[in-house]
Amino acid sequence: MSRYDAPLTDMRFVLFDLLQAEREFARLGFADATRDVLDAVLDEGARFATEVLAPLNAVGDEVGCSLDVATGDVRTPPGFKQAYAQYVDGGWTGLVTPTEHGGQGLPHLVGFPIKEMIDAANLAWGNFPLLSNGATEALMAFGTDWQREVFLKPLVEGRWTGTMCLTEPHCGTDLGLLRTRAEPRGDDTYAISGTKIFITAGEHDMTDNIVHLVLAKLPDAPAGSRGISLFVVPKFRVAQDGSIGERNTVRCGSLEHKMGIHGSATCVMNFDGAEGYLVGEPHKGLMAMFVMMNTARLAVGLQGLGVSDRAYQNAVEYAKDRLQMRSATGTKFPDKPADPIIVHADVRRMLLTGKALVEGGRALAYDAAMQFDIASRGESGTERAQADALVGFLTPIVKACLTEWSVEITYDALQCFGGHGYIREHGMEQLARDARITTLYEGTTGIQALDLLGRKVMQLKGAGLEAMLGRIRSFCEANANDREIGGYCASLTHLAGQWQQLSIEIAQRTGSDADELGAAAYDYLMFSGYTCLAYWWARSLAALRDATPTTAFAEGKRATARFYFERILPRTLAHAAAIRSGAPSLMALDAEAFDAGR
Amino acid sequence: MSRYDAPLTDMRFVLFDLLQAEREFARLGFADATRDVLDAVLDEGARFATEVLAPLNAVGDEVGCSLDVATGDVRTPPGFKQAYAQYVDGGWTGLVTPTEHGGQGLPHLVGFPIKEMIDAANLAWGNFPLLSNGATEALMAFGTDWQREVFLKPLVEGRWTGTMCLTEPHCGTDLGLLRTRAEPRGDDTYAISGTKIFITAGEHDMTDNIVHLVLAKLPDAPAGSRGISLFVVPKFRVAQDGSIGERNTVRCGSLEHKMGIHGSATCVMNFDGAEGYLVGEPHKGLMAMFVMMNTARLAVGLQGLGVSDRAYQNAVEYAKDRLQMRSATGTKFPDKPADPIIVHADVRRMLLTGKALVEGGRALAYDAAMQFDIASRGESGTERAQADALVGFLTPIVKACLTEWSVEITYDALQCFGGHGYIREHGMEQLARDARITTLYEGTTGIQALDLLGRKVMQLKGAGLEAMLGRIRSFCEANANDREIGGYCASLTHLAGQWQQLSIEIAQRTGSDADELGAAAYDYLMFSGYTCLAYWWARSLAALRDATPTTAFAEGKRATARFYFERILPRTLAHAAAIRSGAPSLMALDAEAFDAGR
Repeated sequence: MSRYDAPLTDMRFVLFDLLQAEREFARLGFADATRDVLDAVLDEGARFATEVLAPLNAVGDEVGCSLDVATGDVRTPPGFKQAYAQYVDGGWTGLVTPTEHGGQGLPHLVGFPIKEMIDAANLAWGNFPLLSNGATEALMAFGTDWQREVFLKPLVEGRWTGTMCLTEPHCGTDLGLLRTRAEPRGDDTYAISGTKIFITAGEHDMTDNIVHLVLAKLPDAPAGSRGISLFVVPKFRVAQDGSIGERNTVRCGSLEHKMGIHGSATCVMNFDGAEGYLVGEPHKGLMAMFVMMNTARLAVGLQGLGVSDRAYQNAVEYAKDRLQMRSATGTKFPDKPADPIIVHADVRRMLLTGKALVEGGRALAYDAAMQFDIASRGESGTERAQADALVGFLTPIVKACLTEWSVEITYDALQCFGGHGYIREHGMEQLARDARITTLYEGTTGIQALDLLGRKVMQLKGAGLEAMLGRIRSFCEANANDREIGGYCASLTHLAGQWQQLSIEIAQRTGSDADELGAAAYDYLMFSGYTCLAYWWARSLAALRDATPTTAFAEGKRATARFYFERILPRTLAHAAAIRSGAPSLMALDAEAFDAGR
Repeated sequence: MSRYDAPLTDMRFVLFDLLQAEREFARLGFADATRDVLDAVLDEGARFATEVLAPLNAVGDEVGCSLDVATGDVRTPPGFKQAYAQYVDGGWTGLVTPTEHGGQGLPHLVGFPIKEMIDAANLAWGNFPLLSNGATEALMAFGTDWQREVFLKPLVEGRWTGTMCLTEPHCGTDLGLLRTRAEPRGDDTYAISGTKIFITAGEHDMTDNIVHLVLAKLPDAPAGSRGISLFVVPKFRVAQDGSIGERNTVRCGSLEHKMGIHGSATCVMNFDGAEGYLVGEPHKGLMAMFVMMNTARLAVGLQGLGVSDRAYQNAVEYAKDRLQMRSATGTKFPDKPADPIIVHADVRRMLLTGKALVEGGRALAYDAAMQFDIASRGESGTERAQADALVGFLTPIVKACLTEWSVEITYDALQCFGGHGYIREHGMEQLARDARITTLYEGTTGIQALDLLGRKVMQLKGAGLEAMLGRIRSFCEANANDREIGGYCASLTHLAGQWQQLSIEIAQRTGSDADELGAAAYDYLMFSGYTCLAYWWARSLAALRDATPTTAFAEGKRATARFYFERILPRTLAHAAAIRSGAPSLMALDAEAFDAGR
């Protein structure tokens, strides 16, 4: 079984040294978010993740969830329900929800490390509370007072959980095709009918009720995605006073058999005239969905980060323990029958790739959380607007890059184990299978790439890109002559120029051929991710100048930054070349000729 | 469930148009390998793979193998045993074994497409006959007349299967550490005692007997890998006349639970004074092992190729069927609610990556088989020596690149399915899990990289590299002014020069720092693989000038070659930069500082 120790030292470095969280929280008016409180929250979160959740990771994979077809009830794996009760008792459910909605009102930047630890400890379990967040966001933004009292409150308290019911068998990305119907019943309720698939935590045994947020079409809906409305549909009907009534006609029809996250209930949900309430305005459901989706996307990025960190940690431990061959430069441990494999350059290449992408990715993701906090609490409209643009810009990068990297890191970590990595008992293959979902749900990598390039850069005229480039340039100017990081700043300045230039070139080409955008999107996304990470690695070294970390920690950062700039960042060369090659090599081939070799 | 149709058109193109197999087979004296015979063999192989093996792929994954702990017997998945009987009846087991050993004596180049189809249809099943090959090679090369009569003959006939018992719990790569002992018993037999792990097809119900080729140490063995001897140990003892006697004291202690290839029996084998016979000379077992290993490594490369092709095929079908969103350049199918996703540039990027790597990889692998045939049947000593150097050089490239690409291709293919790819019933996730073993067994990618750079390039003074560079240069010179491929030849010539230059630089740096070799090895391997593939894509277009394929087929090749040169080949930029960055960024960090962030 794989182990998990929380990376508290690096988390504190990112929060307090790199992002100056104490100073920022004070400035943003998070009066309760003092260093003492934050340290206690981190310690307690680590304890919960490592002691309660991590031991349930393997059993969740082995036993999975099961459906009682007769009743439609879903049983979660052994221990999952009890762990959820502890989670609620610990007050974790409302950690970052504003106090006016019953939460603790802590910054999202504090919620991120907690979430990362939960995901690292037990990705499948983490999906049960996760989906409440989207429902919470939607009801906070668009719910009526009554809906907030009746549905939002139990969600924040953790007594109930939420779902996001979007996908149908024939439509995932293309929600304009959806067929679920909502018929007005004459009062303020609607009868919802249709089938939703891939509904995470759609049914389970952890709470008394489940709050489904459902996209459906009203009878007079215009065609396409502008005709979608959002409804709240509880598993058990609720009375005016919020008390639980009889069973609603929504039911889990089956559970999906998946490659991984077996402990997460992925449900087919059948709505058969189920009683629901409209959330927000008719036909404006897609906007509400994006409110739910944006936090969910950042959250999936954190899933990638958490799983990666656990895989990396286990690979390091194994590489220090496993004795095989001697070091190329001569025996290092003459008293042992062979040297530990961490002496071998190629094993180090894999480990350092993990370290560079995990620690860099952590800074990237946590910064997005800080921008999220600034966007709502910033001192000026200008500051809030810039932070908001940054969050929008960074969200697809965090989601897609951290999940793509999680596939790579869990691959490398498993590879460090050799054949043993393929055997279940070591737990590495579970991490690889679990990580694999993260590039798919809440929008595939391809969809994130289109969101970044098409919407955030092109449609929004690059406000987020400009803000990011501005940060990079001012940092590089300030550190251009630094003995240690001046060289990195030179690379970074060059890269920022190239990033801007590529953005302009793509925009120009897209003007004459609309396929150019999609042709460039994936490589542009990855180019963006690697450039952002270079910025965070350079900034990490700058932050170390002032901080007083342990020597091993600081040496680790310096060596990894060097590794990142020398050995990972050149990937941007390949991505830039692919971007510049344009659409023709992709679009020329007739669909029927793809498989002409058979 | 995923489908599989054999890529016979492309296979024939590679064999007959690209590699000129008819002419070559005649030249090499394979009198029976006429076009008629080869076409019939391919057709029949495709029929067996698609009709018999492919339908058993899912059930093999679901049911897997099971061990009766009381008896040590292993039951294979439903249908596996019957399929094996059909395989034997079809005469497939001795297809490429020389006629003097009871085989059909066909070229390895004919065996490769058959093996590719078997692996694509059912990778797990393919492992049962596969392991007989290594035992066959070892016994042909080193067995006594009696050993050949008694053990080799039933292996070639398929009545028995073979295994390769190398790995022990504490040693995989580093066989010098092995502990299995062989005690002489005074006659010509030895008592073998020890535990071997990861023994593919170590126990099963398909044949009356199993022939284990076992590495063990004699009592007077020198320390390390120079003290290893090879033994043949049958599951049932054999009398002098080859008849089956009583049960030998070798037994399956347990089956591994693995990420994939559930239908393949991966056994812990306990040898408890089991009766065995020395194969070859004492203490020379490692050389014999490499004889077994080399064909096994090429075979695993074919596994990667086969699984990739099946994944690619299913992704293409899905992309043509799945309707989602409209094309960026306007509606393509107005009569449908949305366009098929194959209209989207990013989906095409993933599909074309698969097509480029599968079809290029097929040419690369089949060429290695042809060199294998030339190495044993070439007309002159010079020709045979050059072919032998090429096989040795190409083996780690075929093994490592085709398996690394299989991880990428099964990733991309699954990604084309979106969330549906993560669901078992589509069969895509099984392909991804099955592919994952191929970069691990028969030597990890890291080991292949060291074999290529350390042994094949450095120790053997680059004979194989020089031969490959010579082929590239003479092809490029001959086609430099070609309207269609002249540009590709210019890129390729540049790349060949860079390849040679990098080899020299690494050799020089390794002279002053032994870690430079391991630091460069992985990126050098991948650089080599992409360069070889560029050669085969250019040659494919050249071959199309003379051949008369269907238009769709030729267009597919041309579009894919362009895609390969424009969008895949730039990856060499990143690999070259990583190679040139050298060892320091890998070796600086103290082992204890890797996880200082916790």
